[in-house]
Amino acid sequence: MPTRFNVAIIGVGLIGGSVGLALRQRKLATKVVGVGRRAGSLAKARRCGAVDATTTQLARGVRDADLVVVCSPVEMIAQHVRQAAAACPAGALITDAGSTKASLVAELSGPLGRDVRFVGSHPLAGSEKTGPENASAALFEDRLVVVTPSDDATAKDVRAIENFWRSLGARTVRMNAAEHDAAVAATSHAPHVIAAALAAATDARHLPLVAGGWLDTTRIAAADAQLWRQILLDNRQNTLAALDAFEARLAEFRAALSEADGARLARLLDAGKKRRDQSPRKRS
Amino acid sequence: MPTRFNVAIIGVGLIGGSVGLALRQRKLATKVVGVGRRAGSLAKARRCGAVDATTTQLARGVRDADLVVVCSPVEMIAQHVRQAAAACPAGALITDAGSTKASLVAELSGPLGRDVRFVGSHPLAGSEKTGPENASAALFEDRLVVVTPSDDATAKDVRAIENFWRSLGARTVRMNAAEHDAAVAATSHAPHVIAAALAAATDARHLPLVAGGWLDTTRIAAADAQLWRQILLDNRQNTLAALDAFEARLAEFRAALSEADGARLARLLDAGKKRRDQSPRKRS
Repeated sequence: MPTRFNVAIIGVGLIGGSVGLALRQRKLATKVVGVGRRAGSLAKARRCGAVDATTTQLARGVRDADLVVVCSPVEMIAQHVRQAAAACPAGALITDAGSTKASLVAELSGPLGRDVRFVGSHPLAGSEKTGPENASAALFEDRLVVVTPSDDATAKDVRAIENFWRSLGARTVRMNAAEHDAAVAATSHAPHVIAAALAAATDARHLPLVAGGWLDTTRIAAADAQLWRQILLDNRQNTLAALDAFEARLAEFRAALSEADGARLARLLDAGKKRRDQSPRKRS
Repeated sequence: MPTRFNVAIIGVGLIGGSVGLALRQRKLATKVVGVGRRAGSLAKARRCGAVDATTTQLARGVRDADLVVVCSPVEMIAQHVRQAAAACPAGALITDAGSTKASLVAELSGPLGRDVRFVGSHPLAGSEKTGPENASAALFEDRLVVVTPSDDATAKDVRAIENFWRSLGARTVRMNAAEHDAAVAATSHAPHVIAAALAAATDARHLPLVAGGWLDTTRIAAADAQLWRQILLDNRQNTLAALDAFEARLAEFRAALSEADGARLARLLDAGKKRRDQSPRKRS
């Protein structure tokens, strides 16, 4: 890390605010500038200590940045990367925190100009909560960040972005963007649709009887609908494919229930338990 | 509560063990006897302080009981209630902790003999964990217990069973058995199938990328397959109906994704969020 290390964060919500908090609490940056559209959010981000300074003008926010971290909603990322690339110092690096990667990497292929380079990232550290008031310096600790370099990224730039996320406490893994999008469709985007459909399908008169099972299964349905509309639309083909795989399994459960086939039902439940028990990360 | 209050617990797993721990820590019973099939589980229950004494012989375990709490797997409850009714003191009360109620209440309708009465219960306090080693004296605190009296139950007996669960820290609600089974199909049994199907449908190679969303959505898939086979079979018609409602919602999501209809997708996500945000109990 150079002696001087200025970071600009575009979008200071839960993720951007947490990047800022982690950078400042770990004293990793000379200066952290937060860029946002609304003065209210920026004031919150300043008050919670996520940033040293704020501005609503993107070009002004990135003009001294060695690293720009774009934490905008998925639909805005490409545009914000291009705006940042046009206004940041020559030689700066840009990354993001978006949940989908293939369309973004495709949109940003080719040089950004003035030796500014983009390497995409996806920290697997979301929450159903939003806003800098829910940000945490510990959000990335022991979480996985997927780094999705394009074919023309240099090894040095990819390492720099990996080191950045590791400096915040995260582990990193490299994947190509298409592979990433297919994987998170199965592990995050289809589960989101399923949780939302289950919550919506539950009759309000049954709500007094919900307990830990329903509450956990539907937790992510409480997330921001507009942010998830963008993610799901951007990764809709992979999400539909992951939903196909889920519905094929569900059809087997339905058949076992319809036929009162206890042995088959037990085998299906066992298959689910085995996969769940295999999952590497336990949530405390 | 009488001066002498002996309780027999049939089945000292997570639920039965927690009943025993709560009774003993709150000093609510003169004596708590644990009845089980395996000496190993009974020894565990004794070691963790859930019971004062244990036996593998049901008739011996209940012979001094003022209250018998049957915490057996769903398929065994009716049989254990009848065995307990034949061996316990005249005038004793029997309840259970099973997740389904209609078939049980039907099976146990009519007098049990010798003024022994059964009033069914379902504490909404499960977990994906099993065994007395996971039992907790606090398991029922602020949890809801549904009490499902049959038509011939007396108000006095129903109140006694409600007071018993309240003495362990729970809240109670009365429902008829059919109404209970339809409600928990929507809030617990269909979610269980959905979580298991999602876990089973997730390709093992994608597991390294799972984060909080997948882990929460699939948590209950880690539960014991044999216990859940019994619950789902017993409540299969209601569970299938609840899955119908879920799949109707899921079909709407699929249509919105297929047509890339962002406005419709946002409305569907919003409906899920509204229902989730309405849920009365937050899990810490």
